[in-house]
Amino acid sequence: MNSDDNIQNDSVVDAFGGSVTDYDRLMNEFGIRPIDEVLGLLPKSKRHYYMNRNIMFGHTSLEPVIESINKKKPFAIMTGIKPSSAEYHIGNLITCNEVIYFQKLGGKVYFCIADIESYADGRLPLDQAEQNAIENVADLIALGLNLDKAYVYRQSHQMDVMRLGYLLSSHATHNMMKSIYGEHRLGVYNAAFIQVADILLPQLHNGPLPTVTPIGADQAPHARLSHDFVRKKFFQDTYKFMLPGFTFHKLIQGLDGSDKMAKRNPMSVLTLFESNKSLKKKIMNAFTGGRTTVEEQRELGGQPKICRIFDLYRYFFQSDEKKLKEIEGSCRKGELLCGEDKKNLLGIIQEFMQAHEKKRQDALPKAREVVLERLDG
Amino acid sequence: MNSDDNIQNDSVVDAFGGSVTDYDRLMNEFGIRPIDEVLGLLPKSKRHYYMNRNIMFGHTSLEPVIESINKKKPFAIMTGIKPSSAEYHIGNLITCNEVIYFQKLGGKVYFCIADIESYADGRLPLDQAEQNAIENVADLIALGLNLDKAYVYRQSHQMDVMRLGYLLSSHATHNMMKSIYGEHRLGVYNAAFIQVADILLPQLHNGPLPTVTPIGADQAPHARLSHDFVRKKFFQDTYKFMLPGFTFHKLIQGLDGSDKMAKRNPMSVLTLFESNKSLKKKIMNAFTGGRTTVEEQRELGGQPKICRIFDLYRYFFQSDEKKLKEIEGSCRKGELLCGEDKKNLLGIIQEFMQAHEKKRQDALPKAREVVLERLDG
Repeated sequence: MNSDDNIQNDSVVDAFGGSVTDYDRLMNEFGIRPIDEVLGLLPKSKRHYYMNRNIMFGHTSLEPVIESINKKKPFAIMTGIKPSSAEYHIGNLITCNEVIYFQKLGGKVYFCIADIESYADGRLPLDQAEQNAIENVADLIALGLNLDKAYVYRQSHQMDVMRLGYLLSSHATHNMMKSIYGEHRLGVYNAAFIQVADILLPQLHNGPLPTVTPIGADQAPHARLSHDFVRKKFFQDTYKFMLPGFTFHKLIQGLDGSDKMAKRNPMSVLTLFESNKSLKKKIMNAFTGGRTTVEEQRELGGQPKICRIFDLYRYFFQSDEKKLKEIEGSCRKGELLCGEDKKNLLGIIQEFMQAHEKKRQDALPKAREVVLERLDG
Repeated sequence: MNSDDNIQNDSVVDAFGGSVTDYDRLMNEFGIRPIDEVLGLLPKSKRHYYMNRNIMFGHTSLEPVIESINKKKPFAIMTGIKPSSAEYHIGNLITCNEVIYFQKLGGKVYFCIADIESYADGRLPLDQAEQNAIENVADLIALGLNLDKAYVYRQSHQMDVMRLGYLLSSHATHNMMKSIYGEHRLGVYNAAFIQVADILLPQLHNGPLPTVTPIGADQAPHARLSHDFVRKKFFQDTYKFMLPGFTFHKLIQGLDGSDKMAKRNPMSVLTLFESNKSLKKKIMNAFTGGRTTVEEQRELGGQPKICRIFDLYRYFFQSDEKKLKEIEGSCRKGELLCGEDKKNLLGIIQEFMQAHEKKRQDALPKAREVVLERLDG
């Protein structure tokens, strides 16, 4: 495995801890290519605003997917969720948006409920994972997933994925996995093998096929592991898999100014289930690029680059490039003060969440049906 | 895990290499109890001759199975084969005899085709394993397995076994597995987890149930691992598994005088598929306890204790205690010479193999049906 050569335990990334310390080093170590490299292949009208804002910053092997988009040929979008909570984290929204974007461009979505991973990771019982997954899928439907072009499954009920996970593990040593992920219980390494099998499921079902798996940058080791396996002679001979494509997005930082949204630090995280009171508290206390006094802010202007409120606009609540620039501009000039900015955003989020909650409630029966569909055989 | 405490890499046993160096030390290290301890619970008429001959020398947790036998209550026999060859090794016959013996005492047989293990162990493709398994199952039917009281399955097609294997792996560290099995690829450790899941399958399907898995002494680590897992609070709380029972038999030694039958040494091994010529060659060249000259043998007598011909009688070809003693006695007294002894046995084996081959051919269509029955769902 190439992975042994240049990834050490002082890794730039923790795939199971959800963190990245240095994006340039990450790209270098994991062979992630700049997204700009392939944007020219995609008509402007078909680009996601994440691509223009350096949120979706990188890719590997995305070219065949873009070719399929342009030629209206089949391709698949692989995605999934570790059902460790019934509540979608706003970070999950990034992947959802990307998945739905690719689906609208013509792909079929494979949505994996990673219940074996949530067991390996935190010993979450499978039936609890199932309940959480129903809620998660309802969120996804509410956000715009078209179930007619989607295949939803649980790892623990997907025989071919479990089987391929075991076969993959026969090609892996402890040292190799330790060098990529650090020291873990064997179940966690198995979760990585199963995740590779998930990524290859569209090709298991359809034969060689362009696929894209949109992921956060912290998941780069899984992408790398999947390429390492697919390149092995055995898997080439047996399955003729194409290299799966990936897009990588930057992780959204903690609302409170911390580096990452972390559950143990509730003020850093926004879920799609905040009470009005909690939402208000979190937004009004969010870290901004504001100055110490109003006078200073009028004079020096705000700093959108480090502002978590501006981040929320950039990631979720202002898809229009021109309008985003207006917010940025009036902030920089000191015209738009943080308090007003926060109030505006709060209103937008409240409206979004109310509408979302209604759609989610409507989607729940369908979500239950889809999650429980494939019963133990 | 207790296993960490007293099993070192210089282990008395190699579970994946099929060897044991010291039976007393094995019993001590793996907590194997002498079979004599429970024989009193079983009427003499119901004992297998292996139990009287120190072939089936040990057990763990066999008491509930004996109680079920005596009270005609349900119990299960778990067994399986690594389908690495289409040809049953005569050593496989020991387990087959034990399994069929317990089935006749009222138990239901669960027969696992360990195709994930044969992949992990030697990269045997699953479809080749399937073909071998059909042959193996035909042998088993020919030997007397009653399919009406048996459940035959392939690991790679048994969803609940694969799932439980993954859950088990989440409770295991690399150090723990290394201390039991030595250093292996992760697929080999996974084969051990799946094997524990196999052992627990009768209880997964029926709830808590007395079970017996008859194994060769070299498989003691798997037995120990299964007990270690079942004792864990999580598995007690979730599944309420009973401790699975095991019987342990001594491994048959190499025909040529070597310690073990090994494929790389064909003269050491007898399969159920020898040509008449090959059979004759192997038997007539077998290592015996004979003396250097006929005169010496007449005077000192033979040594059945180290004789491989006598071993074949003891294990397979003379179930009658009295007749076995006669052979032993006339050998010791120098009356029965090795040449004659070999010729007698050769006739018996030829007859057995001819009859077996006919039964096996008749059983093949049924074996194919049973192995392929559970298709990918």
